[in-house]
Amino acid sequence: MPPEPVELSLAGHGDVPSAVDVALQDPAYRAAVVDLLGAIAYGEFSAFERLADDAKLAPEMADKAELARMAATEFGHFERLSERLSELGADPYVAMAPFRTAFDDFHSRTAPADWLEGLVKAYVGDGLAADFYREIAAFLDASTRDLIIESLSDSGQSRFVVDRVRRAIETDHRVGGRLALWGRRLMGEALTQAQRVAAERDALSALLAGGVDRPAMDLAAIGRLFTRLTENHSQRMDALGLAA
Amino acid sequence: MPPEPVELSLAGHGDVPSAVDVALQDPAYRAAVVDLLGAIAYGEFSAFERLADDAKLAPEMADKAELARMAATEFGHFERLSERLSELGADPYVAMAPFRTAFDDFHSRTAPADWLEGLVKAYVGDGLAADFYREIAAFLDASTRDLIIESLSDSGQSRFVVDRVRRAIETDHRVGGRLALWGRRLMGEALTQAQRVAAERDALSALLAGGVDRPAMDLAAIGRLFTRLTENHSQRMDALGLAA
Repeated sequence: MPPEPVELSLAGHGDVPSAVDVALQDPAYRAAVVDLLGAIAYGEFSAFERLADDAKLAPEMADKAELARMAATEFGHFERLSERLSELGADPYVAMAPFRTAFDDFHSRTAPADWLEGLVKAYVGDGLAADFYREIAAFLDASTRDLIIESLSDSGQSRFVVDRVRRAIETDHRVGGRLALWGRRLMGEALTQAQRVAAERDALSALLAGGVDRPAMDLAAIGRLFTRLTENHSQRMDALGLAA
Repeated sequence: MPPEPVELSLAGHGDVPSAVDVALQDPAYRAAVVDLLGAIAYGEFSAFERLADDAKLAPEMADKAELARMAATEFGHFERLSERLSELGADPYVAMAPFRTAFDDFHSRTAPADWLEGLVKAYVGDGLAADFYREIAAFLDASTRDLIIESLSDSGQSRFVVDRVRRAIETDHRVGGRLALWGRRLMGEALTQAQRVAAERDALSALLAGGVDRPAMDLAAIGRLFTRLTENHSQRMDALGLAA
């Protein structure tokens, strides 16, 4: 008589360790992933809050709805990241807690004075966050990486922002100078907060140091990462018709 | 030789009038549907705005996220209603315009003073709106009715509100008296604005007057409708542990 197909049945219930589970059995790696997902989740949540707030600055209801749409999209990302944290056995709110100050400070220091500043912030901030997460995702197991990449998909809102900002500059060229300064300030504040988080969170640093099955990131690589982030930022400013 | 299956092919492309199109060929009916969807769409949008705002009153981030989830859900409804308006050949923003004052006035007159007032408003306001739309939907073609019913589905947020409000009353009984007054004020303001809209919008009144393929609503029926709305409101207040 053949043996009972126990393994198959267990696998069907997800009790057999998958490649993901193996990676997550490394406590340092798991801590880093929880940290990273916590940071991104709070980033998405605070983006929801600020976009919903900044939508009030819109001159017309259709514009307001565009920013509200971005807000609702960020909230959807927040939900999926929270679910993933729960799956990993982490309390999403505990995981997010260490990153609240950095994001809240960033937002309170970059409260847009008007609708156009709000648009530039939505575009530049979203793009910068997406670039950063995409870079970090390269150091993660496939399943976590896919979740992060998926949660960064742009749903065409960028075109709307580019269109509105370019039109405003065409109408009044002085707007371009003011918004270019604003873009630089956004980048500066974002880097300040990112640096602070990197310095405070050992788990994230450990992630960059690599593991048996994952590449490490040396200082030269971190340097190149920042170069890429800055270049992409310049390209976004350029797309808006602004000097970086 | 058999004739080409032209009709079938056309039907497949939606060019043959369906039962929905037949109903919507009546200009008075179409105007009423556009009016109604415009009203509901703006109601959902303004609910998104206020819930996102009221979320700030939350004592903890998990509570804040619950209200933000309600906001994002309302935005999803707004999107579907806007799409439907576009399908009907109407500009969603033009369709919403006549209802902005009523909803904005309602919200500015019922700005919650604290987190608990915000919760009661979310629960009572959402429930009242859902009841009203469900009643009106009975007078519509099946396709429009389904869209409206679908956009009213509760995603379990009610339990969260009921739980939080009941716990607050248990902790401090005086809270119950204050929130009961608040619930009555919400109902009063909602009825005031609903009456104003009904008086101003001929198309909606025409809808209630019925058509060849739709029942009419006489004064006695309108009276019964308000009785049902009031009864459901009392049940909701009761669920919260509040005197209606």
